[in-house]
Amino acid sequence: MSLLVFGTIGIDTVHTPGGQHRENILGGSCTYFAAAASFFTPVRLVAAVGEDFPDEFRAVLKQFEAIDLAGLEVRKGSKTFRWGGKYLDNMDHRESLFTELNVLEEAPPPIPEAYRDSALVFLANAHPGRQALVLDSTTKRRLVVADTMDLWINIAKDDLLALLKRVDGLVLNYDEAELLTGHRNTVAAGRHMLDLGPRFVVIKKGEHGCLLIHRDGIAALPAYPTERVVDPTGAGDTFAGGLMGRLAQLHAQDPKRELASFESVREGLVAGTIAASFNIEKFSLERLVEISADDIAQRAREFAAMLRVG
Amino acid sequence: MSLLVFGTIGIDTVHTPGGQHRENILGGSCTYFAAAASFFTPVRLVAAVGEDFPDEFRAVLKQFEAIDLAGLEVRKGSKTFRWGGKYLDNMDHRESLFTELNVLEEAPPPIPEAYRDSALVFLANAHPGRQALVLDSTTKRRLVVADTMDLWINIAKDDLLALLKRVDGLVLNYDEAELLTGHRNTVAAGRHMLDLGPRFVVIKKGEHGCLLIHRDGIAALPAYPTERVVDPTGAGDTFAGGLMGRLAQLHAQDPKRELASFESVREGLVAGTIAASFNIEKFSLERLVEISADDIAQRAREFAAMLRVG
Repeated sequence: MSLLVFGTIGIDTVHTPGGQHRENILGGSCTYFAAAASFFTPVRLVAAVGEDFPDEFRAVLKQFEAIDLAGLEVRKGSKTFRWGGKYLDNMDHRESLFTELNVLEEAPPPIPEAYRDSALVFLANAHPGRQALVLDSTTKRRLVVADTMDLWINIAKDDLLALLKRVDGLVLNYDEAELLTGHRNTVAAGRHMLDLGPRFVVIKKGEHGCLLIHRDGIAALPAYPTERVVDPTGAGDTFAGGLMGRLAQLHAQDPKRELASFESVREGLVAGTIAASFNIEKFSLERLVEISADDIAQRAREFAAMLRVG
Repeated sequence: MSLLVFGTIGIDTVHTPGGQHRENILGGSCTYFAAAASFFTPVRLVAAVGEDFPDEFRAVLKQFEAIDLAGLEVRKGSKTFRWGGKYLDNMDHRESLFTELNVLEEAPPPIPEAYRDSALVFLANAHPGRQALVLDSTTKRRLVVADTMDLWINIAKDDLLALLKRVDGLVLNYDEAELLTGHRNTVAAGRHMLDLGPRFVVIKKGEHGCLLIHRDGIAALPAYPTERVVDPTGAGDTFAGGLMGRLAQLHAQDPKRELASFESVREGLVAGTIAASFNIEKFSLERLVEISADDIAQRAREFAAMLRVG
């Protein structure tokens, strides 16, 4: 089962709540997603960068051998997306210090011909109209999951609602779920979103874990409890990468297993939780590049044991 | 194993986020704690009310047959504690509209002679000096757990720190843990509090569940996911009641089991989570009075199944 991710690769500047800061580090939704998913399955990445994209960042991505970089377009005369942000008193709230869209303002990267048969598609946060174009180009897709953000709920809600009719799953933050549905209660918000099209919705709550609202059930999971939190950037994308990568892996292990059953998604959420828990321990991909699939499996077992009650 | 709770019985007025409001309903920490604990074990209640305490409220408490009301002092010439509060945009934040301490400003109720052999003692939120007096009167205690609040951290911190050296467990809210320790990260805050004396600390996060920091391990649990939330008043006290009641029950079922082992406390937290999830479905004790131990056990099994991953 081939997994495709469409999103951004960027150059970030991050100020953490702990007072640390780092300039010009590798970031972007595709970056984090693909690195996390690569522990479970091969992953095809579609993103555009400018000709200023540093060779050493490409070298970092190449260290994740399961990432296929054929869809990484280096666009002549363009500049890479840049973002700077500062985390506020807690890890869940941040303010953007600057956003230079650069290549993101231009035409989106094409989906390579060889990627059009991808069975699993993850649409990282982007304008829902752009996300829809990816669906038009992937004709054999069997599972589509999308992320979104408050900006699109505010300025492109019709496009977003149209997209939601075409996806199997939606992943979004807690406050975005409230913004989209008007429900402060996450279970009520999730049920409301199921009525908009998806088979399942995952509401991300950062350090408080996540909630799965699936047509076949509801599950809440805590985050992996840790005090090793350096930089939360990319936590949501590594979470989604673990989820989708694990779903692809579960299906590869047992092709009879339904790809997005309640049980499968719940297992995927554990993988996402654990991938995110490693990611936040260092800046950029610095922690993920150090660990192995065994490290993830080991922490996932600890997490499962922690939750074995009754 | 006899369980004693020392706390308040009050008359509440509550405005919920859903726009409902109810005046003059049965409330107080002892009330909620004892009702929840009574599903698991006999519970001895120590609290004072005034002579205005309505007969029908006593009748409600009597419906929980495992509550021993011998320690409920009705004080002539005094008035019952009254509190009015309004929940803000979410269920976790509320403002007090009025607080009439009344009998709480007078001498605390005495611990009845027959209660002094209590093995499990829960000190509901009160001035830590008053909580300490209860310990002086219970000479056979084997497990003491205390609750506290921001007020005492601010105005009676030395008394609180002295108390913490005498308790086995501390239960407190998320923001109170930060206030007491200066740590925003809950794991760091919990570890800090272990250094102050307790064997374990439970950080309550309302709709986001709880975190257990025990000398022998760490566990996070989500809340039971529900959209049936009418009135969160008493959620923390029913949570503590389920915890302590279940610990007493586990020990009664297997006296060789260590009373406050990591595993036992984790099981207790499930009971507390489920008790609280029922309590918030209606005002006052209106939901708890309707349900049975079987209902709690059934929901606890669903909760455990939801968390069975990997």
